[in-house]
Amino acid sequence: MLNFDQLSLNIPDTTKPRVVVIGGGFGGINLVKKLSGKDFQIVMFDKQNYHGFWPLLYQVATAGLEPDAIAEPLRKMFDEDYEDFHFRLVRILGVDPLTKTVKTMIGDLHYDYLVIATGTKANFFGNEQVQKYSFSLKTIPEALNLRSQLLQSFEQASITKDPDIRQSLLNYVIVGAGPTGVEMAGSLAEMRKHVLPGDYPGLDFSKMNIYLVEGLDRVLPPMSPEASAKTQKYLEDMGVVVKLKTLVESYDGETVTFKGGEQIRSQTVVWAAGVTGALIDGLPKELIARGGRITVNEFNQVQGYNDIFAIGDIAFMKTEKWPNGHPGVAQPAIQQGQHLAKNLRRLIKNEPMTKFDYFDKGSLAIIGRVRAVADLPGNLHLGGFVAWVAWLFVHIYYLIGFRSKLVVLSNWIYRLFTYERGTRLIIRPFVRRDKKEMEEFVVKNELS
Amino acid sequence: MLNFDQLSLNIPDTTKPRVVVIGGGFGGINLVKKLSGKDFQIVMFDKQNYHGFWPLLYQVATAGLEPDAIAEPLRKMFDEDYEDFHFRLVRILGVDPLTKTVKTMIGDLHYDYLVIATGTKANFFGNEQVQKYSFSLKTIPEALNLRSQLLQSFEQASITKDPDIRQSLLNYVIVGAGPTGVEMAGSLAEMRKHVLPGDYPGLDFSKMNIYLVEGLDRVLPPMSPEASAKTQKYLEDMGVVVKLKTLVESYDGETVTFKGGEQIRSQTVVWAAGVTGALIDGLPKELIARGGRITVNEFNQVQGYNDIFAIGDIAFMKTEKWPNGHPGVAQPAIQQGQHLAKNLRRLIKNEPMTKFDYFDKGSLAIIGRVRAVADLPGNLHLGGFVAWVAWLFVHIYYLIGFRSKLVVLSNWIYRLFTYERGTRLIIRPFVRRDKKEMEEFVVKNELS
Repeated sequence: MLNFDQLSLNIPDTTKPRVVVIGGGFGGINLVKKLSGKDFQIVMFDKQNYHGFWPLLYQVATAGLEPDAIAEPLRKMFDEDYEDFHFRLVRILGVDPLTKTVKTMIGDLHYDYLVIATGTKANFFGNEQVQKYSFSLKTIPEALNLRSQLLQSFEQASITKDPDIRQSLLNYVIVGAGPTGVEMAGSLAEMRKHVLPGDYPGLDFSKMNIYLVEGLDRVLPPMSPEASAKTQKYLEDMGVVVKLKTLVESYDGETVTFKGGEQIRSQTVVWAAGVTGALIDGLPKELIARGGRITVNEFNQVQGYNDIFAIGDIAFMKTEKWPNGHPGVAQPAIQQGQHLAKNLRRLIKNEPMTKFDYFDKGSLAIIGRVRAVADLPGNLHLGGFVAWVAWLFVHIYYLIGFRSKLVVLSNWIYRLFTYERGTRLIIRPFVRRDKKEMEEFVVKNELS
Repeated sequence: MLNFDQLSLNIPDTTKPRVVVIGGGFGGINLVKKLSGKDFQIVMFDKQNYHGFWPLLYQVATAGLEPDAIAEPLRKMFDEDYEDFHFRLVRILGVDPLTKTVKTMIGDLHYDYLVIATGTKANFFGNEQVQKYSFSLKTIPEALNLRSQLLQSFEQASITKDPDIRQSLLNYVIVGAGPTGVEMAGSLAEMRKHVLPGDYPGLDFSKMNIYLVEGLDRVLPPMSPEASAKTQKYLEDMGVVVKLKTLVESYDGETVTFKGGEQIRSQTVVWAAGVTGALIDGLPKELIARGGRITVNEFNQVQGYNDIFAIGDIAFMKTEKWPNGHPGVAQPAIQQGQHLAKNLRRLIKNEPMTKFDYFDKGSLAIIGRVRAVADLPGNLHLGGFVAWVAWLFVHIYYLIGFRSKLVVLSNWIYRLFTYERGTRLIIRPFVRRDKKEMEEFVVKNELS
């Protein structure tokens, strides 16, 4: 009925320069917000119809927040008030810099300026078995799958007769102690203490183990050693087993094997160990820097092109202060998006562009209820409740402009006083599609 | 790995009488709330891990509310404060009244008292084609599928070149003008007026048609003629095309054909035309009354059994006042659950049971923002804003005890002042699995 011949991008012709933005993350939306439909025709492509506030995605996975609290439809964000703005929900096939064309599943589009803001995806370092069996946490569907898996593991642990299987259902292994891994581990530890014993009075939660595994010699490696030390102490106080300098060798869906031979049986392995750029076909391979990022100059121009830019996590900009590129967090993406908007306006007026200069506002991570760590400019390190308040304010502040703010706030306040999570609904049971017996179990017990 | 041999229901032995409740709807939860673990061991089975406030399910389908606002985990509702209560997420195979046993996928369980509270499911009157291609609205996954379909139809209408296909994407046919159909039609009409033109500036929403189709001669047939007339007027004022005395002959996924020959091309047909009891194997066929319900006496006892009860929508209790049984809404289920709890306590004390007497509090339906109709006891009929306020208070009142209350309230207040819906996220694109081309389209464009 509907096939590709009957579809087209349906973007109006224009005499203004056309800016095509690929990706509605922090970089893309901040660029569009600062551009005007009076000067440019702006086209945004994304394979999702929403912008996500990914720093809170772990909350969706641990049943603290629903997706609508951390995501906002892009069409709502850029509604009819945005002149000559066109969003298309579409998958990109590639770019052709020679003809200045973006290729999509339903047709090609000429650009005057192309902005690649595609961000990153999970990096399994080529280990297909780990990719197949572990849970990553980069998208809302992934977070909902992980949430279903967590809840189903408690249900299944309640009804299994085999103590070994029960233990493997109650062993949770989180690989990678960056912010996502740390926040996930802290959140699970709080559920174990405050929520789960009430829900599952028949289960012995002293047998539930949370392992946080990191290849380097400290947790939160991008933060200061002070923050790392505080974080590890907080986590260990909460009963998380932190394993440093430990690398995963393999995971077959039942047993994690670490380099060196140690093994843990676990049904739930969360992979938060690294990301790589979500690249687009059509750019020369020699532009791809470490971490699968695209090399750009200090104007975010992709090396060798005047009209192609990359911003945010996908961009690798080497500067004196940041010889390994900027950190892969929201701030560089936001600032690059805003800065590039100014430079595009300069370009069409034939004015020289200005260099991007990253203003480091510091970094924050939350470990649990009223506990966080912060590295602030001026070598200032905070911990505990003060850092938690800072974390809360920064996140609420950046959610401004989102309707979600209200929901997030009321949820946070509610949880603060009650320790309660309201969203422990198994909406679509997670089915590990490669494991026939598991599938049989869940399909026969399917909930819908 | 996990197979059925390794699982068991794992319910502790007991010397108390064991009450097994099948279903965590309004009947089941109100029964359990009034029973005490001091007198009984209480076991609840459900194939979902949550209780849903289904009168608001249409809000999930039209992106007004997220699932957590209308559903509550059963384990949270009956937590450790409920002595000797045991919830199991499990699918029921049947009952054996001779051995007093409930059979599940993972083992059998003996009962002293069995309460069937399984409610209803959509009734397609044997029309398999309609069942295959239309959307029903009885469960959260169904509501989320319908939401995805609605949002995708606008996205696809934005990019199709073929005006016939665009029109069929913008034709929405709702079959059945009961409360669900009416609320769905009203909600879609409000989206068309207040929300969609901002999101899709390139689409001409004067071409979006909402058809509400009813086989009988008025909308809301269970309510008073006054309420029906008011409702039809409100709907028509909002631009809904109401088609009475109209029956669906067939729907092949592209064209709805009505009895008499009229046809409408539509990609989205919502089936809200009827329900039938969600029966359990093992009871004699002659007990099944009209609408697939189980015949009970005025103690909710299933005919012929002293120890099997049915409550709520699944129960057919013929009384002088209600010769066709009680209406299929929340109130009879709530009252029967509460009443049966008292009777079970009487039974174990060898006291005589008391008859169930339904207290009709009236009925309510909402048509749109600040418009509703109400039939109250004493032949009192309300409409407009007053009925809407009544609707709001009744729904908020029955959400008390739910955390959701807060979320629902804040969402409602927010929407009241902004006309805004925050949850237009296509989280898991709906795939019409029987249509190869559509699947190809969506799978290749999949969002996750």
